[in-house]
Amino acid sequence: MTHIDLQTILNEIAHEVETFYGKGSVADYIPALAKVPARQFGMSVSLLNGQEYAVGDADVPFSIQSISKVFTLVMAFREKGDEVWNRVGREPSGTPFNSLTQLETTGGYPRNPFINAGAHVVSDMLMDFLPNPRQSLLEFVRMLTLNDVIDYDQEVAESERIHGDRNRALAYYMKSFGNIHHEVDQLLDVYFHQCALSMSCRDLSRSLLFLANHGIVPHSGEQILSESRSKRLASLMLTCGLYDEAGEFAFRVGLPGKSGVGGGIVGIIPGLLSVAVWSPELDVSGNSVLAMEALERFTTKLGISVF
Amino acid sequence: MTHIDLQTILNEIAHEVETFYGKGSVADYIPALAKVPARQFGMSVSLLNGQEYAVGDADVPFSIQSISKVFTLVMAFREKGDEVWNRVGREPSGTPFNSLTQLETTGGYPRNPFINAGAHVVSDMLMDFLPNPRQSLLEFVRMLTLNDVIDYDQEVAESERIHGDRNRALAYYMKSFGNIHHEVDQLLDVYFHQCALSMSCRDLSRSLLFLANHGIVPHSGEQILSESRSKRLASLMLTCGLYDEAGEFAFRVGLPGKSGVGGGIVGIIPGLLSVAVWSPELDVSGNSVLAMEALERFTTKLGISVF
Amino acid sequence: MTHIDLQTILNEIAHEVETFYGKGSVADYIPALAKVPARQFGMSVSLLNGQEYAVGDADVPFSIQSISKVFTLVMAFREKGDEVWNRVGREPSGTPFNSLTQLETTGGYPRNPFINAGAHVVSDMLMDFLPNPRQSLLEFVRMLTLNDVIDYDQEVAESERIHGDRNRALAYYMKSFGNIHHEVDQLLDVYFHQCALSMSCRDLSRSLLFLANHGIVPHSGEQILSESRSKRLASLMLTCGLYDEAGEFAFRVGLPGKSGVGGGIVGIIPGLLSVAVWSPELDVSGNSVLAMEALERFTTKLGISVF
Amino acid sequence: MTHIDLQTILNEIAHEVETFYGKGSVADYIPALAKVPARQFGMSVSLLNGQEYAVGDADVPFSIQSISKVFTLVMAFREKGDEVWNRVGREPSGTPFNSLTQLETTGGYPRNPFINAGAHVVSDMLMDFLPNPRQSLLEFVRMLTLNDVIDYDQEVAESERIHGDRNRALAYYMKSFGNIHHEVDQLLDVYFHQCALSMSCRDLSRSLLFLANHGIVPHSGEQILSESRSKRLASLMLTCGLYDEAGEFAFRVGLPGKSGVGGGIVGIIPGLLSVAVWSPELDVSGNSVLAMEALERFTTKLGISVF
Repeated sequence: MTHIDLQTILNEIAHEVETFYGKGSVADYIPALAKVPARQFGMSVSLLNGQEYAVGDADVPFSIQSISKVFTLVMAFREKGDEVWNRVGREPSGTPFNSLTQLETTGGYPRNPFINAGAHVVSDMLMDFLPNPRQSLLEFVRMLTLNDVIDYDQEVAESERIHGDRNRALAYYMKSFGNIHHEVDQLLDVYFHQCALSMSCRDLSRSLLFLANHGIVPHSGEQILSESRSKRLASLMLTCGLYDEAGEFAFRVGLPGKSGVGGGIVGIIPGLLSVAVWSPELDVSGNSVLAMEALERFTTKLGISVF
Repeated sequence: MTHIDLQTILNEIAHEVETFYGKGSVADYIPALAKVPARQFGMSVSLLNGQEYAVGDADVPFSIQSISKVFTLVMAFREKGDEVWNRVGREPSGTPFNSLTQLETTGGYPRNPFINAGAHVVSDMLMDFLPNPRQSLLEFVRMLTLNDVIDYDQEVAESERIHGDRNRALAYYMKSFGNIHHEVDQLLDVYFHQCALSMSCRDLSRSLLFLANHGIVPHSGEQILSESRSKRLASLMLTCGLYDEAGEFAFRVGLPGKSGVGGGIVGIIPGLLSVAVWSPELDVSGNSVLAMEALERFTTKLGISVF
Repeated sequence: MTHIDLQTILNEIAHEVETFYGKGSVADYIPALAKVPARQFGMSVSLLNGQEYAVGDADVPFSIQSISKVFTLVMAFREKGDEVWNRVGREPSGTPFNSLTQLETTGGYPRNPFINAGAHVVSDMLMDFLPNPRQSLLEFVRMLTLNDVIDYDQEVAESERIHGDRNRALAYYMKSFGNIHHEVDQLLDVYFHQCALSMSCRDLSRSLLFLANHGIVPHSGEQILSESRSKRLASLMLTCGLYDEAGEFAFRVGLPGKSGVGGGIVGIIPGLLSVAVWSPELDVSGNSVLAMEALERFTTKLGISVF
Repeated sequence: MTHIDLQTILNEIAHEVETFYGKGSVADYIPALAKVPARQFGMSVSLLNGQEYAVGDADVPFSIQSISKVFTLVMAFREKGDEVWNRVGREPSGTPFNSLTQLETTGGYPRNPFINAGAHVVSDMLMDFLPNPRQSLLEFVRMLTLNDVIDYDQEVAESERIHGDRNRALAYYMKSFGNIHHEVDQLLDVYFHQCALSMSCRDLSRSLLFLANHGIVPHSGEQILSESRSKRLASLMLTCGLYDEAGEFAFRVGLPGKSGVGGGIVGIIPGLLSVAVWSPELDVSGNSVLAMEALERFTTKLGISVF
């Protein structure tokens, strides 16, 4: 892969996916997201050697929403190790991301850290060892991206809070089983803010490059996760990263990835690169229509998947 | 990897996993399986270049059970292509392999081809275009393995039939939704026989080597599946291949794989090799305890996973 | 209540409910039922003293369908007593009449004898002690009604058999848990025939009068059930008799009752009378729209309910 | 029934049920209930003519818990009429009293007003038209019983609040569907207090006597509910009043009733009497073991049920 190849591929993809505008709809569960203009598309690729390629709205910050669940899980996993799995599972859920039904069967033990209930438990863990998890998360993401202006979108965070009853229900439900240890209001303050992290595709592809690099941040050489844990986190993204469409994503794209209802999807090719795509229109499962298309074309054109 | 390395690794593994005897129990849902001696372990690795490495009971034939679901899916997929997905999904199920509950919600559409209900639909598809699916399956497997003595274990098939009420329930239930087209008795005759295929680890690692080789059978050069379909099938194995433990397997082992309650598990490393392990004692999810341990050690010692 | 009053009330009701034609739809799950003309309405009341009142199509035989579940339960209950409850529960199901989901949770133990799964278990019990349950059921119903021409509608029975895959699924599923003891085909032959019993409103109101009379058939004086068991059976009809609409029926009508998708509903007022209504158009829960209306008006006009 | 008969019957029952001590266990989900001495039994009967019969600990106040759901429903029903059913159903639930699963299927619409979720909706309705629902409920109950010292047990209310996460989950979940209109904290303040109402058997049998009297409070002549609504409320108690054991209660006892985890059960015989029993030890469904036994004996000895 030369510079020219990758840039050409991104340009082609950006052109091809335009025909998919209008096939999904922008998330409307909170007003702050509903007002995002639909026809935007950005894509960014980060290579291990530091090179970056981008196309379209790759530098426009957007609400990363559930993609933040990867960051908090990394923070909890590096601190607590396999203890994490005492409180949250590693299996695909087979139900929508905000379902309560499965929690009833399992006694408040979420299937994986990428559904909302699982992310609550992870944020609850952060509160065990971090005096200010919101601030720590911000510093962690800024360190990964070398971008010190990344911040929370307070309007989105507030909108999440106002429309947060389903998340309150999930958290109180798990608390009734003893699987949430801190105050729900404080926990959800962390959670609503992490969802409101505002980052661009370029930020995102940079931020998760360490997962393609044996757990080491390329620009600093810092080992964030051991190689083994880094692989395991990638496997979790592959089996559970795309809500109720994880199998579909593995089938069509074939990469570990994580999506958010803000329209972003980030994926990694171990040993090679990380890639982030953003476009606000979502399919019925809550994944970006254009981002899915773009990633499927990306792996097809490169002839690369993990399989 | 040299000859010596791989053989040494297999020998080490065979030695190490011995301490796990007694931690699971042999499948007892049919008498023909329940009487298999528990303390057996075999492992076989097939490389793309034709080399094979084996240890322990790698040449002892056993009942491959659900691993057969890969063979029938390949046969249906190569004939029907993406039409297959009109009748069966590609998502992890999040429920046990023989559950009926999910079928009620989806109107008789199984979540994936590796749970029993999905495999019934696949076998039903084979009956559309094959006059004798049982015979065709046998020929297909013999061709893949170059082993003409592979056959059905009639005692196991009969035992499956006698204790097959749950499978009858699944098939009639889907038929009531119109997703089974042929007679249930005839369909299950195919299904009970495919479960009763008797193969050794060596047979199994050979048989799925084409999935690690862009869909081409190495010994004959025949393209069984296109490269793209071959990858997609591997992704399905990763997300759905191990019953309710698919995430666990991806997490610990990191390979596309498929297990059976006979105690076998087969996995592939795309571009490199296929590996089969067998030991009859199962964990609560129905996967072989020693085979899981062996495969986790195998990818750790090789330093290879798809992630 | 004088003769004139009751006849006047029935005439009024027959007139009033006419406006509800067209608000439901005739059962179409089997062709033999789908062809029944929709605009028919009959109603019959039997008093303990032998008097009978009727209006409309009260002497037209129709397919009693699930109402037959009362007859088979009475036959099993009088023979086996409380042993019956070892194999079937006494709780409202909260799910549609042909659901499999609940059976998965309970390990094949149906919630009550008036959902399909429960009725299968009851018919299976009859096969324990009756050499020819079909014939015995027919004789039992003829004895209760003094009508020797009551018979099975063979076309309906055959139609049930042809479209009986959901029932096969239920029966095989319970058999897989050990809660069906006989051959499924033979069991369903009984079941499909009981559903195909062809009776008129007059037959039906007569047939269950013993439940309003302490278990004693008024015309013969025969004690079919003890007083205590008779009451208990009535209580079961009240809590579980109308599929997923049992609460609605208790709320609106306030009587123990049992409905069938042929459009019949039968109810009893303990110590006083039994009443049967028939009209083929069903609401979404599978209960006759006009019959529900008629019974609500009946208890309101009489000023009588069990409450 | 003469004075002597009823008193004798109560005495007999009190004696007979003693053998059931130790067969259940006192509710332990909140400390304030867990410390209630187990071996207590009281029973009280109120006749329409004002006569009262009692035995044992009939004047010991206890926590009425879910029995309070009848009072709040009466208050909402008399004000809002059938509008109530727009927000809560009338069907038995078929699942435990605090289940969330069913709410997911129905989009936040509880099956009936006697499960926790349904009671929340009812209390939410009271907040629409009452400035101080807690105070109004107290006045309502005092009026029904002519007992002005009835009050909330503040220790129990506080214990409910501290251990109220499951109820918070239920309320926030329904709020996320728009079926709770007021602030959850304020709503649950009402709910936790209503559960903490402290009343004796004598209070309880008096309080619901109007349901046996066409909706009219005998001692004042006040019409609380119309005759029709009074009957309908009784029918709801019969089909839904005893959690997941409603069918069992109808079968064994045959009366409209309502139970609470404090160990109380109240029942009515329309046109005749109301009866309250209390004993703290509960069966697995959360109903008092001795109270169930006592009521079954009561209707058997009297030879009276609604059937």
